[in-house]
Amino acid sequence: MSRIVMKFGGTSVAGIPEIENAARKVVAEVARGHQVAVVVSAMAGVTNQLVEYCARISPLHDVREYDAVVSSGENVTAGLMALALQKAGVSARSWQGWQIPLRTDEVHSKARIEAIETDELEKRFAGGEVAVIAGFQGITPRNRISTLGRGGSDTTAVAVAAAIKAQRCDIYTDVNGVYTTDPRIVPQARKLEKISYEEMLEMASLGAKVLMTRSVEMAMKMNVPVQVLSTFEEPIGSDFPGTLVTREEDIVEQHVVNGVAFSRDEAKVTLLDLPDTPGIAGQVFGPLSEANINVDMIVQNVSADGKKTDMTFTIRRADLPRALGVLGKIEALKKTEIRSDDKVAKVSVVGIGMQSHAGVAQTMFRALGEKGINIQVISTSEIKISVLIDEAYTELAIRALHAAYRLEEKLSA
Amino acid sequence: MSRIVMKFGGTSVAGIPEIENAARKVVAEVARGHQVAVVVSAMAGVTNQLVEYCARISPLHDVREYDAVVSSGENVTAGLMALALQKAGVSARSWQGWQIPLRTDEVHSKARIEAIETDELEKRFAGGEVAVIAGFQGITPRNRISTLGRGGSDTTAVAVAAAIKAQRCDIYTDVNGVYTTDPRIVPQARKLEKISYEEMLEMASLGAKVLMTRSVEMAMKMNVPVQVLSTFEEPIGSDFPGTLVTREEDIVEQHVVNGVAFSRDEAKVTLLDLPDTPGIAGQVFGPLSEANINVDMIVQNVSADGKKTDMTFTIRRADLPRALGVLGKIEALKKTEIRSDDKVAKVSVVGIGMQSHAGVAQTMFRALGEKGINIQVISTSEIKISVLIDEAYTELAIRALHAAYRLEEKLSA
Repeated sequence: MSRIVMKFGGTSVAGIPEIENAARKVVAEVARGHQVAVVVSAMAGVTNQLVEYCARISPLHDVREYDAVVSSGENVTAGLMALALQKAGVSARSWQGWQIPLRTDEVHSKARIEAIETDELEKRFAGGEVAVIAGFQGITPRNRISTLGRGGSDTTAVAVAAAIKAQRCDIYTDVNGVYTTDPRIVPQARKLEKISYEEMLEMASLGAKVLMTRSVEMAMKMNVPVQVLSTFEEPIGSDFPGTLVTREEDIVEQHVVNGVAFSRDEAKVTLLDLPDTPGIAGQVFGPLSEANINVDMIVQNVSADGKKTDMTFTIRRADLPRALGVLGKIEALKKTEIRSDDKVAKVSVVGIGMQSHAGVAQTMFRALGEKGINIQVISTSEIKISVLIDEAYTELAIRALHAAYRLEEKLSA
Repeated sequence: MSRIVMKFGGTSVAGIPEIENAARKVVAEVARGHQVAVVVSAMAGVTNQLVEYCARISPLHDVREYDAVVSSGENVTAGLMALALQKAGVSARSWQGWQIPLRTDEVHSKARIEAIETDELEKRFAGGEVAVIAGFQGITPRNRISTLGRGGSDTTAVAVAAAIKAQRCDIYTDVNGVYTTDPRIVPQARKLEKISYEEMLEMASLGAKVLMTRSVEMAMKMNVPVQVLSTFEEPIGSDFPGTLVTREEDIVEQHVVNGVAFSRDEAKVTLLDLPDTPGIAGQVFGPLSEANINVDMIVQNVSADGKKTDMTFTIRRADLPRALGVLGKIEALKKTEIRSDDKVAKVSVVGIGMQSHAGVAQTMFRALGEKGINIQVISTSEIKISVLIDEAYTELAIRALHAAYRLEEKLSA
């Protein structure tokens, strides 16, 4: 008997009809002979309402009480889903974090899962019962409710899948899978059947907001195959109607590049005529780090005389005013000109295959050059190449790259 | 150091401004040197919404899941109240039923409290912390959430007060106390400073919906003084701005009658020419009881020849159609004429003092007779006299009785 986890996000359980629709999908998997654990988010909008209540009382609130409040939305959905399953004739029981228990550390509002006790769940699986688990929440060593941060229900689903040794973790959402790029920009964008964890991580952190980075990292570490699929479409004649995120070795045929990701949440800072002394990078990035400002791409040019240098780096757009404030107070930069630009975007091509293929970067640079798009900063990892460009060219760049790598074409297996 | 419980109902915590207002009342009691446990209901309307969700999925739902769903509203308020208290500079922590734990039996949706563990609460009281307890909920021996039924938060408050040996349990609501009768009917109705548990029980069950019967029963059994008072009025120069519900011996001066209660939720059934045989009452009321229909007042006239009798009884108005269905199927009533009337009301005078005073009933009957109001059924207990009358005369009867017993006059102590 195989075992799967099915996770339904907020729009998939937005109201009673949606919950009943999701329950039908669970019933179908039970009918196929699966043992099933369901993980649910709060009904769409509920968590935001609860967060707003807390913020209205005090912007600087006690995170323990915040967690107690915002975790309640998932409890409602879990109970309602259990009721919907029971009505459909399936034995089901809801589980809140403390009931399982799903144990976390004490970092309230962004807790990490430490252990999931499965004895009781196992007993009930054996008796044919579906476990409906409230996502996003756990219990701390001090008997307090914790929450896992944004996208926490995905993390719950993957952690539960690992704990109960599920064959697969299905993440039901309002899109039917992971695409080569945003179909609203490139109508020919193609749904991927499979994608590696590593590629998914690059796609997710670069702005393809299908799965939260943390849940993909956990799936990779725990080796849990994750399928992203739509709650609102019926699968047509396929075992994998969505996109399976899995190990590289489980993906036989690969494009060299599998997707074009992008992010508009970027700002660029350039430091001109910086004294080129040992430790200068630390003097710049130390204070930024202390201010909790993440630096992404960094480029430094060595000067001809070895005494001055230019440095460019990118940060989140919202952090720019704060970053400029921090930089203005650094003694070593007193004589440095600081320029910034928040009209930039990052566009990246991602693919496991590029590790073993030459010329991938060249294709990218040529495609952008042919459209007259100037590359401001470049950064690369083993499986991605990112460029920073003028924001106005974002869509043009994405379309050019999608075409250059022929991403609209399905590989013949 | 004295200790009090403060309970806030749904309208008292309807939104963030109301929660902050309630928090100010808690802060004031803490400033007076009290150790305080706060018990909160769900924000007004929330529980009804959750009940409706459950009903929409299935009218016949699993009460365990129903409890898991409907208990969540109180969790939200408890967390928000703790945040509001912290913001006001008072140390506070929220407690859900399972965290205390507040243990109940397994009768889901109307569970009874069996035990409240107070070790952790006591430790925190000693450290100056206010405990904010989610009302209406507990945990069963099987680690499932239970709820206590309608008015359950009042019951939680009284049970907590008993468990922590509080001097008083203050029930904050949208009225400022218990009145001699409904002020909308009798503008001269007077707020009572004190009322005995026994009188309050008669007033509550007769339709004065200030406190739920169960919480008053528990307060009486546990000997917890309960004060009913308004969340929305500021007390003016009085230690007891509301009405204190307490032991008879703690109330020095008493009117013979302390209140006029009434209920329009009544229907009357008359069985004419019933065979007057032993066991006939059982044959009538047994099936009604099995159908979960409560019978209230019962009058039986013995017939002249001893072979036939007439019987009249009252039930809740909503139960009348079902009751007639049940009676129609009883073999022994095949030849009995069954009459019913749902245009009746029950009016009662209540007072501990009537135990030691003669002529109380006589005053009632004369007052009603002078207004030409016909009494259909009479029933009495030690501290109340109830009459069933034509519903159209309800207000007239209440005004006549309020005047006859001079309830508008305060006793000079």
